[in-house]
Amino acid sequence: MMFKTVQWNGGIDGVVEMIDQRKLPVEEVTLECGDVGEVFEAIRTLAVRGAPAIGVAAAFGMVLPLQEVSGDADLAEAVEKLNQAGDYLMRSRPTAVNLSWAINRIRAAADDFVKDSPGASKYQLAECVLKEAEAIRNEDELMCKEIGVKGQEFIGDDYSILTHCNAGALATAGQGTALSVIFEAEYEGKRPRVYADETRPLLQGARLTAWELKRAEVDVTLICDNMAGWLMKQGKVDCVVAGADRIAANGDAANKIGTYSLSVLAKEHGVPFYIAAPSSTFDLALGSGEDIPIEERAADEVYKFAGVQTGPEGVKVYNPAFDVTPAENVTAIITEMGVIKRPDRSRLMDLLKEKMK
Amino acid sequence: MMFKTVQWNGGIDGVVEMIDQRKLPVEEVTLECGDVGEVFEAIRTLAVRGAPAIGVAAAFGMVLPLQEVSGDADLAEAVEKLNQAGDYLMRSRPTAVNLSWAINRIRAAADDFVKDSPGASKYQLAECVLKEAEAIRNEDELMCKEIGVKGQEFIGDDYSILTHCNAGALATAGQGTALSVIFEAEYEGKRPRVYADETRPLLQGARLTAWELKRAEVDVTLICDNMAGWLMKQGKVDCVVAGADRIAANGDAANKIGTYSLSVLAKEHGVPFYIAAPSSTFDLALGSGEDIPIEERAADEVYKFAGVQTGPEGVKVYNPAFDVTPAENVTAIITEMGVIKRPDRSRLMDLLKEKMK
Repeated sequence: MMFKTVQWNGGIDGVVEMIDQRKLPVEEVTLECGDVGEVFEAIRTLAVRGAPAIGVAAAFGMVLPLQEVSGDADLAEAVEKLNQAGDYLMRSRPTAVNLSWAINRIRAAADDFVKDSPGASKYQLAECVLKEAEAIRNEDELMCKEIGVKGQEFIGDDYSILTHCNAGALATAGQGTALSVIFEAEYEGKRPRVYADETRPLLQGARLTAWELKRAEVDVTLICDNMAGWLMKQGKVDCVVAGADRIAANGDAANKIGTYSLSVLAKEHGVPFYIAAPSSTFDLALGSGEDIPIEERAADEVYKFAGVQTGPEGVKVYNPAFDVTPAENVTAIITEMGVIKRPDRSRLMDLLKEKMK
Repeated sequence: MMFKTVQWNGGIDGVVEMIDQRKLPVEEVTLECGDVGEVFEAIRTLAVRGAPAIGVAAAFGMVLPLQEVSGDADLAEAVEKLNQAGDYLMRSRPTAVNLSWAINRIRAAADDFVKDSPGASKYQLAECVLKEAEAIRNEDELMCKEIGVKGQEFIGDDYSILTHCNAGALATAGQGTALSVIFEAEYEGKRPRVYADETRPLLQGARLTAWELKRAEVDVTLICDNMAGWLMKQGKVDCVVAGADRIAANGDAANKIGTYSLSVLAKEHGVPFYIAAPSSTFDLALGSGEDIPIEERAADEVYKFAGVQTGPEGVKVYNPAFDVTPAENVTAIITEMGVIKRPDRSRLMDLLKEKMK
């Protein structure tokens, strides 16, 4: 039932395979990347998106340049190729933190390998890189799964769950973050029914979330963002589960624009509101949500769609990409480490400290 | 600065002129209808829309069949033509109450005229019909103006006003209902700044409201529906003014989907929330909003846009066209008769009774 957003296909002479997200939701096409330039283009043009998925794609992509090193080349030449590929791939999405994190982790593994085994072959180096990339993928998969499992204490049988944007399998190498809670409920036989906000302006909910839930045979209904409140008013929503891009030390959570409004609507209707996100999302350098910078994006995302003009030419547009949901509107934060109910600074620190012991 | 949504151009041999709303927001094109078939098509294909505007277009359209009656025809033949045209025009939008109301009013005026002046010419009958159509237009214009004037007690200088859908000049023969409050504030030199929700799924806010405010040189900023709450959270909204399609006897108001969510968000942020609508919107046969039927519309309005598929083929969709805002979320209802603060059944009856004296 489940699909693979990014994977390696074959031995060390294999290829990176990914679902071409540019073609969704109309077609499911598998994109094969056989050289590092193709991985670069796939990341740059959003064939693969979502911080964890990009990191995994780049990590697998680091195997490919080693396939081109000739059999009699020495190890130093192979390492040089690898480093060049890393520099190059990092430029594919300059602001994606997971991208440079994954690439640097591959480089560090390669450096350690070369130090420990100076007489090894380039094949052995490629095996080491592939192994490290698979470790990154596996950790991401496990993290996703754990979020889903930890979230189950909040999900009852036949729950109607509202979600926003795409915090799904398509953004990770596993079963997603917010959607992992839903997939896990499905696996456990709880028959969740999902309402997916289409999520204007870029429609990730319609294009990606509705697609992946339908693909995985989860009961999903697509709505426009402005219908969520009316659904809640009619008692049709048992809880909201959203992802997060960044969580401050006090539990304030930045996520796709519209999440804040959902949290207010949920509060008004007594509907529990959950944030599901990996612990890597916590940014303890930020005291509160007020310290989180909000990216404003181009006007034409709002007044044009698929080349068609929806608003008057040159109209002023306000287009923030994110908003911040204050911790007091959040019933619990669900992480792979555990859940934080009624999140605040001290409860957040308690969880993180316990796990760092 | 202001445009004319529908008007009659010329003497009794003139034409019905309207802004072709199918071409908005990209082009401003004036559509001339020289026969009743063209008026029918204009209404059917939404070149003109909005209950009052449709009524006025049909009323003016009733002059056109009389132009085709030959000079030596008798009055009975002219009346017959007129009645045929009325039956025909009524089928252009079967559920539009204003359409049949306006057509029946024209017919009644014609009947009275023929009774009083059996020897009159078909030109004199046409003059009578044109005069009645102009009366309908003028009453609508005055009603719009009065709503705007009555609403001014709630609007301060430099207010930021959020509005939803299109309750504007484009829906009436005057300056609209909710937007009349804004236009009037502009005329009075209060420099209102407007945020227009794009209003998914049919984007009336982007296509019509943003266009008409920009056209009238009012400061307007387009947003996606899911951004309204975040705007309020930042203190950027001084009040919300929306229209209504139907208001129950207790003040509960049905309006375009998304209005209810706005009312909850406004309450959370202490932002006043106004409904501006003509007194003809009150439906005293309905005890409360629970009695208002909510139309559900086709799925492809949500998962397709301009021929482009935004969601997976065959995905389930929930697409209610309207929602109901409970009276307790409404700071005041603004009508042409006066305003009803903290609306409930008795305050509503007080206003209506006083004016019916």
